[in-house]
Amino acid sequence: MNPFDSIDIDRLRSGHGVKWGSLAPDVLGAWVADMDFGTAPAVRAAITEVVERQDFGYPFWPGEDPVVAAFEDRMATRHGWRPEPNRTRVFTDLIQVLQVMIEHATKPGDGVAIHVPTYPPFLASIIRSGRRVVPLPVEWTDTGWTFPTDGLTEQLAGCRLLVLVNPHNPTGRTFTHAELTPLAAAADRLDLVVLADEIHADLVHKPHHHVPFATLAPHRTITATSATKAFNIAGLRCAVAHIGPDRVHDALTKAPLDYFGTPSTLSRAATVAAWRESDPWLAELMTTLRDNRSIVDKWASALPWDLRHHTPDATYLSWFDLATTPFGAPTPHRLEREIGVKLSEGAEFADGTPTDTSTFARLNFATSPSNLLAILARLAAGLANR
Amino acid sequence: MNPFDSIDIDRLRSGHGVKWGSLAPDVLGAWVADMDFGTAPAVRAAITEVVERQDFGYPFWPGEDPVVAAFEDRMATRHGWRPEPNRTRVFTDLIQVLQVMIEHATKPGDGVAIHVPTYPPFLASIIRSGRRVVPLPVEWTDTGWTFPTDGLTEQLAGCRLLVLVNPHNPTGRTFTHAELTPLAAAADRLDLVVLADEIHADLVHKPHHHVPFATLAPHRTITATSATKAFNIAGLRCAVAHIGPDRVHDALTKAPLDYFGTPSTLSRAATVAAWRESDPWLAELMTTLRDNRSIVDKWASALPWDLRHHTPDATYLSWFDLATTPFGAPTPHRLEREIGVKLSEGAEFADGTPTDTSTFARLNFATSPSNLLAILARLAAGLANR
Repeated sequence: MNPFDSIDIDRLRSGHGVKWGSLAPDVLGAWVADMDFGTAPAVRAAITEVVERQDFGYPFWPGEDPVVAAFEDRMATRHGWRPEPNRTRVFTDLIQVLQVMIEHATKPGDGVAIHVPTYPPFLASIIRSGRRVVPLPVEWTDTGWTFPTDGLTEQLAGCRLLVLVNPHNPTGRTFTHAELTPLAAAADRLDLVVLADEIHADLVHKPHHHVPFATLAPHRTITATSATKAFNIAGLRCAVAHIGPDRVHDALTKAPLDYFGTPSTLSRAATVAAWRESDPWLAELMTTLRDNRSIVDKWASALPWDLRHHTPDATYLSWFDLATTPFGAPTPHRLEREIGVKLSEGAEFADGTPTDTSTFARLNFATSPSNLLAILARLAAGLANR
Repeated sequence: MNPFDSIDIDRLRSGHGVKWGSLAPDVLGAWVADMDFGTAPAVRAAITEVVERQDFGYPFWPGEDPVVAAFEDRMATRHGWRPEPNRTRVFTDLIQVLQVMIEHATKPGDGVAIHVPTYPPFLASIIRSGRRVVPLPVEWTDTGWTFPTDGLTEQLAGCRLLVLVNPHNPTGRTFTHAELTPLAAAADRLDLVVLADEIHADLVHKPHHHVPFATLAPHRTITATSATKAFNIAGLRCAVAHIGPDRVHDALTKAPLDYFGTPSTLSRAATVAAWRESDPWLAELMTTLRDNRSIVDKWASALPWDLRHHTPDATYLSWFDLATTPFGAPTPHRLEREIGVKLSEGAEFADGTPTDTSTFARLNFATSPSNLLAILARLAAGLANR
């Protein structure tokens, strides 16, 4: 029996007033951004323990923040990277970290490089800040998505910041050491700060493995991560950023001490429980995701159209192209309205850049196998109609 | 039986790793800033419900943030003030709000006025921001602490911001309408923004009552509050600010959307449960605090020295002067070391201003009557020794 079948997906998604984007009753889909799986027992237990103890006092500690200590230990034991002490700050979420780092590492008009397609709020944050998006297009090949590096130095001219989303969203690619090396070299040549969003690092499928960018360029890299993605607790709002570059570290040290807010005691307790006590749950999750990934693979290859789909190395996301299907481009809400499934529409993943992803869609396969099969069956039937 | 006796204070204060400032075993005192009382049942139930539902997804809503709606309703029903729609932002805490408003309502070198003595982190925030503290000394009289207004316009020259802590911490005074009126007039004359910290508004003892400053000067006032003080959930980190002044509202609208972070789903659910469902608990709390306040009053008046103590109108704090006691000024840690009680030492409440509060101390009386009596007995005995 799948351990996640115990989660009542229908109840989770019935409008209980805390979730956004509740699906209409006749629409199938996993959550747009969350997994349909609840979270680890140790995470729930940690919260319940605080509630039972009624320990709702000020969330400050005499020594190091326990979230920072758990992050430092996890990076060392899982990824062989030992973060520099006293360089990690706690934030509430990754988008906040991105926005704070844009303000502190660049000036209006500067270029901010990012691989496209990418997570739409990242593009929106760069544009809204008055910086220029410098897109680094990800390239489709027969054997997988790749990150071209020809002419990288020219592409990055005028940039102060490279936002490196690794594992990559939406393609699910995990950057190899060989792929990271030219990025580190270019960052050196151009004196860039690199914001490495590594929030999906715990969701890498074997034999792939995660390489922290900070191991290649410790003094250029801001490493941002959170337990919220792998442990499915986005609502708890707790993230960390390890700030390698002196210039950014010094700038943030001058900011008002509480300017960026602080996560709650409960969020911190949950994060510590996730990172220190929940790896058995994560291992089960990865098995489920791997099985679901196979379901998507088989489904895509059995279709009469070529979705240009590649098995993701990491994440619970599949990225594919509907161009050759009779259905065509998934303009906003068409998939939901005409087929009754909810995927993320491709266009916004490269919004405002020359890359056209309007025929793509991103599927979240972090749901029960039965729900996933139902989504895929409906999708296959619907894509046949124009 | 006191409903709060059910809280295991010893367990709450035994070093469980989440609290700062655990008291040494031989030191008596309520928490420096929190109450020794746990929180309302509806608050705990709201958190437990989210945990049971495993509803840890992104904390966004299709309509208005439920925290904002609960704030707007509470202001209208309890204080007769109807906040302007779409002017309330959610933050994680009041110190954050202060620091954000200093940055957005003033420039380096500007004066920021505040009544002294005041909550020390407020003074520290103003100083660290490179603004000038313009102290408005609170005055002791035989009948109570007062807020002098003679020469207010001259005092406030060069200020852009007045920070109005009402109810006042540490004196526990609640500003009357008559006392607020000259402040509103001066703010008008000098075109000031007023940041009204009204976090203690739910802790006003009858017959006193809270007057929101926004009712006097809606377009000048930023009203900041949180359920964390009255409902004893400081660790949950959720606060709101209603931003009346167009200039500050517009400046914040231009900031990156997620720059200041976001409170967690659990903190929001707890805040809504506090504000919408926990008034019976609050009423019991107020009875307990009122009884404790009487204990402190009787204790102070029975002492052979004049502590210049006045019954606070609001809060669970007493502010008194040890100058005439044999013990004298409570320099840092002397009370704890020599008497074995933990109070807040007075000096830092007027740090960097001409007001000398070094002989004062602030007592937190939000603890069990038996603990309070033990604290006061030990204090009385200790103050007799120099």
